[in-house]
Amino acid sequence: MGNVVKNLAVLGSTGSIGRQTLEIVRAFPQRFHIVGLAAARNLDLLAEQVREFQPEFIYCQNREALSRRNIGGKFLPLEEMAGHPDIDTVVVAVSGTAGLAPTVAAVKSGKRVALANKESLVVAGEIITREAAQNKARILPVDSEPSAIWQCLEGETQKPARLILTASGGPFRHLSAAQLERVTAKQALKHPSWRMGPKVTIDSATLMNKGLEIIEAHWLFEMPFENITVLVHPQSIIHSMVEFEDGSVKAQLGYPDMRLPVQYALTYPERLPNPKLPRLDWDSLSNLSFEPPDLTRFPCLKLATEAGRWGGTYPAVLCAVDEVAVELFLAGRISFTGITRLVEQALAQHQAVAQPSLEEITAATDWAREKVRQLSAGDRPC
Amino acid sequence: MGNVVKNLAVLGSTGSIGRQTLEIVRAFPQRFHIVGLAAARNLDLLAEQVREFQPEFIYCQNREALSRRNIGGKFLPLEEMAGHPDIDTVVVAVSGTAGLAPTVAAVKSGKRVALANKESLVVAGEIITREAAQNKARILPVDSEPSAIWQCLEGETQKPARLILTASGGPFRHLSAAQLERVTAKQALKHPSWRMGPKVTIDSATLMNKGLEIIEAHWLFEMPFENITVLVHPQSIIHSMVEFEDGSVKAQLGYPDMRLPVQYALTYPERLPNPKLPRLDWDSLSNLSFEPPDLTRFPCLKLATEAGRWGGTYPAVLCAVDEVAVELFLAGRISFTGITRLVEQALAQHQAVAQPSLEEITAATDWAREKVRQLSAGDRPC
Repeated sequence: MGNVVKNLAVLGSTGSIGRQTLEIVRAFPQRFHIVGLAAARNLDLLAEQVREFQPEFIYCQNREALSRRNIGGKFLPLEEMAGHPDIDTVVVAVSGTAGLAPTVAAVKSGKRVALANKESLVVAGEIITREAAQNKARILPVDSEPSAIWQCLEGETQKPARLILTASGGPFRHLSAAQLERVTAKQALKHPSWRMGPKVTIDSATLMNKGLEIIEAHWLFEMPFENITVLVHPQSIIHSMVEFEDGSVKAQLGYPDMRLPVQYALTYPERLPNPKLPRLDWDSLSNLSFEPPDLTRFPCLKLATEAGRWGGTYPAVLCAVDEVAVELFLAGRISFTGITRLVEQALAQHQAVAQPSLEEITAATDWAREKVRQLSAGDRPC
Repeated sequence: MGNVVKNLAVLGSTGSIGRQTLEIVRAFPQRFHIVGLAAARNLDLLAEQVREFQPEFIYCQNREALSRRNIGGKFLPLEEMAGHPDIDTVVVAVSGTAGLAPTVAAVKSGKRVALANKESLVVAGEIITREAAQNKARILPVDSEPSAIWQCLEGETQKPARLILTASGGPFRHLSAAQLERVTAKQALKHPSWRMGPKVTIDSATLMNKGLEIIEAHWLFEMPFENITVLVHPQSIIHSMVEFEDGSVKAQLGYPDMRLPVQYALTYPERLPNPKLPRLDWDSLSNLSFEPPDLTRFPCLKLATEAGRWGGTYPAVLCAVDEVAVELFLAGRISFTGITRLVEQALAQHQAVAQPSLEEITAATDWAREKVRQLSAGDRPC
C-alpha cells in the first residue's frame, strides 16, 4: 500500500476544494501524480496549475478559449477524463449538479471517487451507489461531515444505529424570521467557521447544505432518514458523530479545515503527518456547545429531508431550484428567505418520477430551473 | 462469531465492576456462561450470585468461612481459576494490586482478559504485555477511558500520534490548596459524575486515578508518556480521545456508566443493543467543557507520570503507597493531602530495581506498605 503512486484527475481544480486538493498533492509529491485537471471557467488559474503539475489531460468548459491559450495537455471531455484508464482516483470537486455526469462516469469505470460534490449523490444516489457496487468503484467522501462519519465507522463490524450530523448553524443562527428577510448576500457569505465557495456558504446559511448532507449520508451509509439527526454545534469542531447499537457514540474532531477530509480521502487507509494541517489546541478550546436546529426559521432542513424521503425526482428538483435560487440571491434578485420559498413552491408543483433514469433526472432539473425562473419573477429583494 | 457462548470467570464478582459485569451477562444469557465467580469477602452476595449463575468454580479469600456456608461450586484458588481450561474469558475486576497475580495467570494461559484492574498493568505492564504477546492472550480494557481509546483505534492501520485521557476533575476541582487540606472522606466519596467503588473514587479526587490510567495507557497502547495528555472534562461525556498523524481526532462519548465499556469488552467485536444502557440525549447536553489539569493542587498526576517514566519498581511503590494511604484516609487517620505527601515521600526514598521480576515487584510493594505505615505515623488528620 505504502508507496503506490495514485494517479489523480481533479475535476473542478480551480474551485475551493480543487485548490485544497492540489495543496495536499503538493505536500506529498511522491504519493500522487496529477494525470488530469478540469476547470469550469478560471483559465488563468488552470494555466498556472497545468504549468506546475504537467497533467496529460485538461478540460475547460470553453474549449475554444482553451485552445487559444495553448497551455499544454490534451483536451478531454469531463466524462471521458473521469473514466480514463490512466486514472485511478477521481476527485469530483465540481460544484452543484454539474458534478453528476463525471461522478457517474467515474463509478461506472470502477474508480476510487473522492467525492466532494454532494449534489450528485443527492439527485442520483440510487444510480450512483448501484453503479459503484456493480463496478467495484469506491466512493470516498471528501466533505467534512461524511468524512467524520466514515472515520468513525472504520473498523466497526455492524451498521450503526444513528448518524448525527453537526451543523455550525450558519451566520444567522440568532436572527429572527423578520431579520432573516432582510439579510444581504454579503452578510450571508461571511461564514462563522468555514471558508468555502459561495454556493455552499449560502447553503450553510439557509441550512440547505445540511439538508443535502442528510440525503448524501442516507446514500453513502445506507441509513434510513429517521436515523439521521442534525445537531447545531456552532464551534464546528466535532464534524459529525455516529451512535452504535450499544449506545456508544464516536465523534471525529478537528478545526474547520477542508484539507483534512481531502487528505484522508486521498491517503486512505493511511494517515500521513502533514505539518500544514492544524492540530487541535485544547488549551484554547474550553467549550463545545450544542442545540437542536430551529426548523421554523430554517425550513430548508425539513424540505430537504422530505424531498429525500419522497425520493424519485424530488431531490433533483430540490437541488436544481436551490442552485438557481442561490444564484438569484447572490445577484440581488431575490431575498434570503426567497430561496426557501422557491424550493417549497417548486417541490409542491413537481410531478415526480419514481426510480428515475439519469435522463429523467436531467429532465426534472431542467423543469426545476425553468420553474424557479417563472416563480422568482414574483419575488422581490429587500 | 455471532452465537459462540463465552465461558467467563468473573474475579471480583461482588465489587462494583463485578456486579455490573453480571448485569450484562444477565442481559445476554445466550451469549455468556459463568464458569467461575471469585469474591474477596462479601460471602452473602457471592452466595446469591452462585445461586443465580450456578458456576462450576468459586473462590473467596476465607476458604473456611466459604466451606461452612456450603453455597455450591468447587473451590479454586484465584490464579488457578484465571488459568483454567474451561474458561476462555477472564474478567479481572479485583480491586488494587491484588489483581496482579490473577491477571498474570490469565495472560499466561492465553485468555481473553477483560481487564478492569488497572493496578496490574501499572505495576507489571512490561511483564503482562510480554506474556500476553507470547501466549496470544488478548487484553480487553474495561475501564471507560482505555475502552474509549480502544474504540477510537479500531480499524486504524497506524499508531496514533497522541492519546488524550479525559478526567472529570473530581469533586474538589474548585477547592484551594488550603481547602483541600480539610476535606473529609465523606466529601471525597461523593464523585460528581461516576458511581464507583471507594478506592477509585478517592483516587479520582486526588487525580491519582488519572495518573494510573496514564501508565495503563502507556502499556495498553504502547504509547510514550510524552504523547499522553490529560484534559479535565467535568461532564464526563467524552471518555477519551485519540489524535492521529494527520491531526484528525476521534472521541468516544456516552454517559458515565461502566456497563458500556464492560459490555463492549465482553461482546467485542460485536456491539449488542441493550435497552438498559442509556443513549445520549442531545436535547439535554448543551455544553461540554474542557480545561487543563492543575498539577499544583493535584500533584498525584505528576507523581504518577514520573513514576511511569522512571519505570522499574517505582510504579509498584506508587500503587502500593496509594492503596494504603487511601485506606488510612478513609479510616480518618490521615488528611486528604496526606495521601499525596506519603506517595511523594515513599517514591523519594525508594531504591528501585530496573526491569523487575514479579518477585521483585512484590518485594517493592511490601517495602512500600511498610514504609507508608512508618511515614504516616507522623501525619495527622484534621
